[in-house]
Amino acid sequence: MTRTVLESQTKSTVIGFDAPFCVIGERINPTGRKKLNLELEAGDFSTVERDAIDQVACGAMVLDINSGAVFSNKMAEDPRYADNNFVEPDLMRKLIETVQGVTDCPLCIDSSVPGALKAGLETAKGRPLVNSVTGEEERLEAVLPLVKKYNVPVVAISNDETGISDDPDVRFAVAKKIVQHAADYGIPAHDIIVDPLVMPIGAKNIAGTSVFALIKRLREELGVNTTCGASNISFAMPHRHGINAAFLTMAIGAGMTSAIMNPIRPVEMEAIRAANLLMNHDPHGAEWIRFGRVLDAVAEGMEFPAASLAQQTSQIGGRSGRRRRA
Amino acid sequence: MTRTVLESQTKSTVIGFDAPFCVIGERINPTGRKKLNLELEAGDFSTVERDAIDQVACGAMVLDINSGAVFSNKMAEDPRYADNNFVEPDLMRKLIETVQGVTDCPLCIDSSVPGALKAGLETAKGRPLVNSVTGEEERLEAVLPLVKKYNVPVVAISNDETGISDDPDVRFAVAKKIVQHAADYGIPAHDIIVDPLVMPIGAKNIAGTSVFALIKRLREELGVNTTCGASNISFAMPHRHGINAAFLTMAIGAGMTSAIMNPIRPVEMEAIRAANLLMNHDPHGAEWIRFGRVLDAVAEGMEFPAASLAQQTSQIGGRSGRRRRA
Repeated sequence: MTRTVLESQTKSTVIGFDAPFCVIGERINPTGRKKLNLELEAGDFSTVERDAIDQVACGAMVLDINSGAVFSNKMAEDPRYADNNFVEPDLMRKLIETVQGVTDCPLCIDSSVPGALKAGLETAKGRPLVNSVTGEEERLEAVLPLVKKYNVPVVAISNDETGISDDPDVRFAVAKKIVQHAADYGIPAHDIIVDPLVMPIGAKNIAGTSVFALIKRLREELGVNTTCGASNISFAMPHRHGINAAFLTMAIGAGMTSAIMNPIRPVEMEAIRAANLLMNHDPHGAEWIRFGRVLDAVAEGMEFPAASLAQQTSQIGGRSGRRRRA
Repeated sequence: MTRTVLESQTKSTVIGFDAPFCVIGERINPTGRKKLNLELEAGDFSTVERDAIDQVACGAMVLDINSGAVFSNKMAEDPRYADNNFVEPDLMRKLIETVQGVTDCPLCIDSSVPGALKAGLETAKGRPLVNSVTGEEERLEAVLPLVKKYNVPVVAISNDETGISDDPDVRFAVAKKIVQHAADYGIPAHDIIVDPLVMPIGAKNIAGTSVFALIKRLREELGVNTTCGASNISFAMPHRHGINAAFLTMAIGAGMTSAIMNPIRPVEMEAIRAANLLMNHDPHGAEWIRFGRVLDAVAEGMEFPAASLAQQTSQIGGRSGRRRRA
C-alpha cells in the first residue's frame, strides 16, 4: 500500500491508498486574488492567518503555500521586484512563518521559482511536500536535487517540453519518466504524487473519463499517489460545485488519493466525506456523523468555517455536546 | 456495448454502457407509504397520477409500478383480500392504466406475485421491464417463462435460497447462475439487469467498496447492465442525500447503468446529471446547463417538480426562453 508521509512540527498526514482522501487547501495563493496580492505587498499577513485557520477547521490536512505574488507598486520603485527570483524566496519564508505561527498543519511549498522552494524547505518544520516538478529537463534538474537533499515528497505534473498532451498515454509516459528520473536520484515512487492534469469538461468532453482512466493506471502500474487541481474540471460551467463534487467522488472511486482544492466549500467537503465513508475509510461513519453536525449548523445559517471551528470545540449540537451539558 | 431497450407506446429508453444513467422512478409503491396504500384501497389513483407526472418531469426515464398493497379494511370484510395473489393482479392493471393515461414513459412491472407480473405484461404498452427474478429455483421457473413469452428484459437480484450473502463472490455466482438459466430460455444477457444488492453503509463498512467491485465484475465478465435500490446505502444515517449522491456518482464511475430511486430529490438528480457530464454522456453539457436553470428556480424557492415541469415548457430563465420572447 503506497503511503506518502507529510509532517509538521508535531503532526503528520498520510496520503495513501488505505487512508482517507487528503484535502490540500489551495487558498494561500496570491494568483488571481488581487486583494491578497496587495495585502502581501503591504506586508499584511492577516488574511493568510485567517485562511490557514479556516482551511484547517474545514478539513484541510495539508496547506499549500504559493508565493507567486506580483508586487507592481514596489516594482515601480525598485526594478528588482520585477524578478520573481528576487520576490518569492523572501515571501515564501514569511508566508510559512505566518502559517506555522497559527496552525500546526503539514505544508505544501508551491512555487515555479526553485529559490522559493529552497527557502520554503529551509523554513518549514517537519516534512513538507514540494509543488512541483514537471517532465521538463530543466525543471527536473532544478527540483529533484532539492527533493533528495531535504528528503521530502514532490508533486509531479504530467507535462513536459512538448506541453500538455491530449493523449492520456503520453501523460502517463511523462509521469513514468519523472518517476524514473526520481529513482535515479534515490527518490522512491511513494514520495511522488502525480497530477494527471485536469482539463475543463466544458472544453473537452473526455476530460472526466480520461482522468479517471489515468488515475487507475498511475495507481496500478506506477504505484503512486495522485492529486489534481480539482476545480479546473468545472471551469466556465454553471453550478460548478455540483460538477466538482461529482468529479471528486468519481476520482476517489477511481483511486485518486488527494486534491489541491478550496476546503471552505461545504458541497465539495460533504462529497469527499461521503466518499471516505463509502470507501471504508471512516469506520462506523464517526467522521460523517460529526460532519453532519457542521452541516446542521450551516443549514441554520452559520458560515461553514465558523461552524467547523465551533464543532471542533464542541460548541454546536449533537449528542456529545448534550452529554457534556448533562 | 450492452444495451437494454425499454419501450412505451411511442417512447424508448436505452439502458446501456454508452448511454446516460437510467433513473427508474420508485415512488409508485404502496410499501411504506401508508397514505398511498389507503388511497389505493379506496380506489383513489390521484396520487399515482401526480407521482407519475412529477417523476418524469424530474428526470425519471422509467417508472416502477409496484402493486404490493395491503388492503386491511377490505380484508376484514372479504378474506380473499388477505391473499396478494388476489389483490395484486387487478391493482397492477389499474395502476398501469392510470400511469399510461397521464405519461408515455416506459414502465417497470414490480411485484413478488407472478400473477401481477402477468397482468402487468398484458396491460403495459410497448416493452416494459420486469422486476424481478432472483436465483431461487421457484422464482426462476415462475418468472423466466413470462419474460421469454413477452420478450421483455428483467431485473435479476443476486440472492437465492441461501439468502443474501456477505461474500461478493457468492453474489456474483448467483447473478451468473441467473444469466445462464435465462440463456436456457433463450433470453440474452443484454436483457438482464443485475441488482448486486446494496446494504446500509452504517451496518457494513464494506457496503460501498463491495458493490463497486461487484458492478465492475458484472459489467466486464457477464456484460450485463446493473441497477440497485440506491437509497439503501444511507439507511439509518444522518444527511442521507449526501451519502446517496456520492454513492450514485461512484457507482456510475464503477460502471452502474441504472438505479431504482426517488427522482424528486434535487441533490441526487444533480449528482447523476453531473456524473453523466463527466462520463461523456452529455455532449457539450447541454443537459447540465438546462438542468442548471431548474436548480436556479429551486434556489429561488420553487419546488423541484414544479421547476422541472416549468423548465420543460420553457417557462423559466435561460437563453432559450429569452430567445423565444425576442
